[in-house]
Amino acid sequence: MSEDIRRQRAEQLMRFFEHAPMKRTFGMELSFDDAGNAEFAMPNQSKMHHAFGDTHGGVIATLLDNVGWFTAATRYDCWVNTSELTVRLHEPARQEALLGTGRVVRAGKRLCVVEMQVHSKTGRLVATGSGSFMVSSRRIELPAEA
Amino acid sequence: MSEDIRRQRAEQLMRFFEHAPMKRTFGMELSFDDAGNAEFAMPNQSKMHHAFGDTHGGVIATLLDNVGWFTAATRYDCWVNTSELTVRLHEPARQEALLGTGRVVRAGKRLCVVEMQVHSKTGRLVATGSGSFMVSSRRIELPAEA
Amino acid sequence: MSEDIRRQRAEQLMRFFEHAPMKRTFGMELSFDDAGNAEFAMPNQSKMHHAFGDTHGGVIATLLDNVGWFTAATRYDCWVNTSELTVRLHEPARQEALLGTGRVVRAGKRLCVVEMQVHSKTGRLVATGSGSFMVSSRRIELPAEA
Amino acid sequence: MSEDIRRQRAEQLMRFFEHAPMKRTFGMELSFDDAGNAEFAMPNQSKMHHAFGDTHGGVIATLLDNVGWFTAATRYDCWVNTSELTVRLHEPARQEALLGTGRVVRAGKRLCVVEMQVHSKTGRLVATGSGSFMVSSRRIELPAEA
Repeated sequence: MSEDIRRQRAEQLMRFFEHAPMKRTFGMELSFDDAGNAEFAMPNQSKMHHAFGDTHGGVIATLLDNVGWFTAATRYDCWVNTSELTVRLHEPARQEALLGTGRVVRAGKRLCVVEMQVHSKTGRLVATGSGSFMVSSRRIELPAEA
Repeated sequence: MSEDIRRQRAEQLMRFFEHAPMKRTFGMELSFDDAGNAEFAMPNQSKMHHAFGDTHGGVIATLLDNVGWFTAATRYDCWVNTSELTVRLHEPARQEALLGTGRVVRAGKRLCVVEMQVHSKTGRLVATGSGSFMVSSRRIELPAEA
Repeated sequence: MSEDIRRQRAEQLMRFFEHAPMKRTFGMELSFDDAGNAEFAMPNQSKMHHAFGDTHGGVIATLLDNVGWFTAATRYDCWVNTSELTVRLHEPARQEALLGTGRVVRAGKRLCVVEMQVHSKTGRLVATGSGSFMVSSRRIELPAEA
Repeated sequence: MSEDIRRQRAEQLMRFFEHAPMKRTFGMELSFDDAGNAEFAMPNQSKMHHAFGDTHGGVIATLLDNVGWFTAATRYDCWVNTSELTVRLHEPARQEALLGTGRVVRAGKRLCVVEMQVHSKTGRLVATGSGSFMVSSRRIELPAEA
């Protein structure tokens, strides 16, 4: 897949994410770095806190999943599905904004493996993860830019 | 830990979860089965959907994490922390309400391993997971029933 | 797949395992339970010990992998590949013989998820694991019984 | 922990590994890179093959486990235990010699997380993994060099 097509795909996926209802609920913002890897930013939000008053681990898992899925999705002409996700929580978020980043470990024909990280705004490593994303046979036909 | 104390602990943890802001956001309801294992129910909610219109995998991961954490938490006098979580997504939720259940695989002195499952309302196995919950040295001192 | 065909497949796979050089090295014996799930028995062997004098965790991972792979393999007409394996070590083997068992969590069209356990001869739960086994397009054509 | 002490620890651990019976069985050689991370080399050996004639996935898991454990072990004054290991198999070894490398993701007070990789001699990425290594309270008192 050429750089050009991947960039185009990234732009399509950003528009696609705009339609995700969970985007607003979680307050996540998607961008892509120069290598075509997805980045998700999320502010600290009390509605996402557990009873101790900090960002819930499942919310961090959601951040990792999104990073992995969108990073994998730019590599294929077909949609991918998260089949398995490993999450490692290292430190509490401590009410900091979070940034999730990732990179493809291996983009196989049928399975894409991605490694993901979540850092706090002050640079602490909050969580790491890895995931398996299966390549489906459903072609991506995103709506043309309106 | 006696049955009595575990039941008391379960009641404390249910009150504790009432204070979790994410409870309302995710619309999750906690209960405990007779063996003291946590169960979480969650209705289908469009605000938790990805762009294809179904429950996001990260939300399912949050359900699994909660089941594991609260199941582990009844076994100890001290708080536990999720250190690692493995999530396996088998089928889409298909806009069904979800129920998460779990059981302790091994409650060690310092680490508790729990296996979790998420079924749809019609009984489909949507996801499974397992997690490691580290036992901290912070004693649980829940507020007395008001 | 009918019970009959699965039993036939299990018999083929047992003959297949006879040809695995690692079978002798690890001293593993394969059988299948009535439900068609693989079981692997392994005696305590000092050559498989780490420097503290007990069965190495990687050897236990090998036992889990074999249980998962052969349990998945009876469900399909094509060969499967281990794509991902999660291993949880609960207790040392303490120089006991080990028995690995498993069950299919979900046999999808393209991915089979299996959960595995390793018990010691005296019944202690030594390890648990789960794995993803991808279904390939290579058909199983095992040699006819000689 | 100073560089000097870590180097000393690495030398101790190399002598320690010499006493592991599984070292000879698996034909593994341990060294440490300049950053104090463990490296394990393993030749292709037919006795480690599955029935298709290539290195068994469990043997690769053993390589990953060793890399993780020895990389974690240099960071602490006490022994560590593998509590959980995630293994991702990307490509067959294709009868090549293998090299396992790793790096510490986070060395916490009670838990060390390590990421590991296995490359073939020709540089293909054969497997990746990550593991949780619990820090015990047993101090490392390795025998003085004889």
